[in-house]
Amino acid sequence: MKVAYLGPVGTFSEKMARKLFPDAELIDFPLNVDVTLAVEEGKADRAVVAVENIKNGEVREVLDTLTECEHTKIIGESFVEVVHCIGALPNHGELKEVYSKDQALEQCRKYLRTHYKGIRPLNWGSTADAARHIAENKLMHTAAIASRTALESHGLKILAEDICPDNRTRFFILGDKDTEPTGNDKTFVSFHPRIRDKEGVINTLTGFFRKINMETLLSRPDGEGGYLFYVELDGHFKEDYVAGQIEKAARYLDPSGLRGSVKVFGSYANSHWKEFKKNEN
Amino acid sequence: MKVAYLGPVGTFSEKMARKLFPDAELIDFPLNVDVTLAVEEGKADRAVVAVENIKNGEVREVLDTLTECEHTKIIGESFVEVVHCIGALPNHGELKEVYSKDQALEQCRKYLRTHYKGIRPLNWGSTADAARHIAENKLMHTAAIASRTALESHGLKILAEDICPDNRTRFFILGDKDTEPTGNDKTFVSFHPRIRDKEGVINTLTGFFRKINMETLLSRPDGEGGYLFYVELDGHFKEDYVAGQIEKAARYLDPSGLRGSVKVFGSYANSHWKEFKKNEN
Repeated sequence: MKVAYLGPVGTFSEKMARKLFPDAELIDFPLNVDVTLAVEEGKADRAVVAVENIKNGEVREVLDTLTECEHTKIIGESFVEVVHCIGALPNHGELKEVYSKDQALEQCRKYLRTHYKGIRPLNWGSTADAARHIAENKLMHTAAIASRTALESHGLKILAEDICPDNRTRFFILGDKDTEPTGNDKTFVSFHPRIRDKEGVINTLTGFFRKINMETLLSRPDGEGGYLFYVELDGHFKEDYVAGQIEKAARYLDPSGLRGSVKVFGSYANSHWKEFKKNEN
Repeated sequence: MKVAYLGPVGTFSEKMARKLFPDAELIDFPLNVDVTLAVEEGKADRAVVAVENIKNGEVREVLDTLTECEHTKIIGESFVEVVHCIGALPNHGELKEVYSKDQALEQCRKYLRTHYKGIRPLNWGSTADAARHIAENKLMHTAAIASRTALESHGLKILAEDICPDNRTRFFILGDKDTEPTGNDKTFVSFHPRIRDKEGVINTLTGFFRKINMETLLSRPDGEGGYLFYVELDGHFKEDYVAGQIEKAARYLDPSGLRGSVKVFGSYANSHWKEFKKNEN
């Protein structure tokens, strides 16, 4: 089995992919967009992709790309503890720039503002690749934010450890077939109200799920002045009650049934962070 | 009067600040966080700050910083049409990197993926400052995304214009005093459900506003596994019905009234994009 992840070796994505699929052939991709498209484009059987961080919210390019996929399903979720370190070459000079993945830079914004005021954050494709680039190009005025492993494997010195404490990231596992109900599932679904200027669309929409617990509610602009709402519901979309309410919402949003205003991304076994903590620590 | 904006000269923030406050003393700050804090820290009487883009959603650092302010109020909103261009030095070589504000890079992600596959996007403090940096350092392999004015004023050649069409950004105007109702207002408020593991918090919360139109609903993680919900309601928070429902939500979320689970950021005259289009074009 081929499993896609955000490379190179040393990223938190690799850590997660290796843990979930210890015997698979891991294939690294340079951007989150490529990882998200890997199953859709037949380049992998599974993909392991970061979708949400507890400190900084949804990974926008992943949600946007998933929304455009036609055959890709969310079939699982899993959490990884993220311990960011800042490092630089051992004989570095005054640090003027810091390279990392945009998500990591945003997570560590407060730390940088306090300890490195005025340093310029630059978005790199991945945390581990930022460390590699600094080492290869002998950048003496540039720091990287990445895992201890990634920094040290490229010969960078750790300047500070765990600079964004209690940090974790949720990954989705992507595949091409829907799961069966386990009795403790969640369903990820998006609603796209295209009924412009109608009062109370959000109100009505959330009303349909009054009796189903909504675990998560995210919004993204649709690029035309409206929003897509991503909702995570308790239950499996093959269970009658969940299916019925999704169907009601779909009919309300789009009585013609032609415009695809509702998308079910998949259902997957509930994997609470608490259980992760219990098992890992 | 002193008005804070995201500098340097040539940013979309400057365009907006100049239009709204033609006679004021404009003060530029290097980061959105600094602009958002300018009123709070007594460095300006007003601030004009980008809060949401139609293509890429909320400006995260602005929402997060506003949430931490104690005395700053949202007193107005306004829209600016954003026409992004990509440019480079006239005799540039192969383009390997593109600098811009992270927001602009994300807005133009699809364009870059199509026309400059493999180019490395690097986050700069502002669009105009990216252009300045390339010109000053004679970077022959680096492009910038910014306004035509900003690129041309630093001697960069326009390679393509309006690379993210139909783009606009909403700005908030910040001050230190609440507004009075005009009869056509909106209110920006956040809810922070800290009641963990209680089923249906989102459901109950949105239920309080079943009869008030919710224009916008954004969510941000609180860093501890929960979410803050930012809601924009029709009406002014000094109007009885709006005040009553906010009060009900506050009592539900936090019966002790001690933990500040509800924050009213301010009410301001409704300034629809449609009206902006009508007036401008």
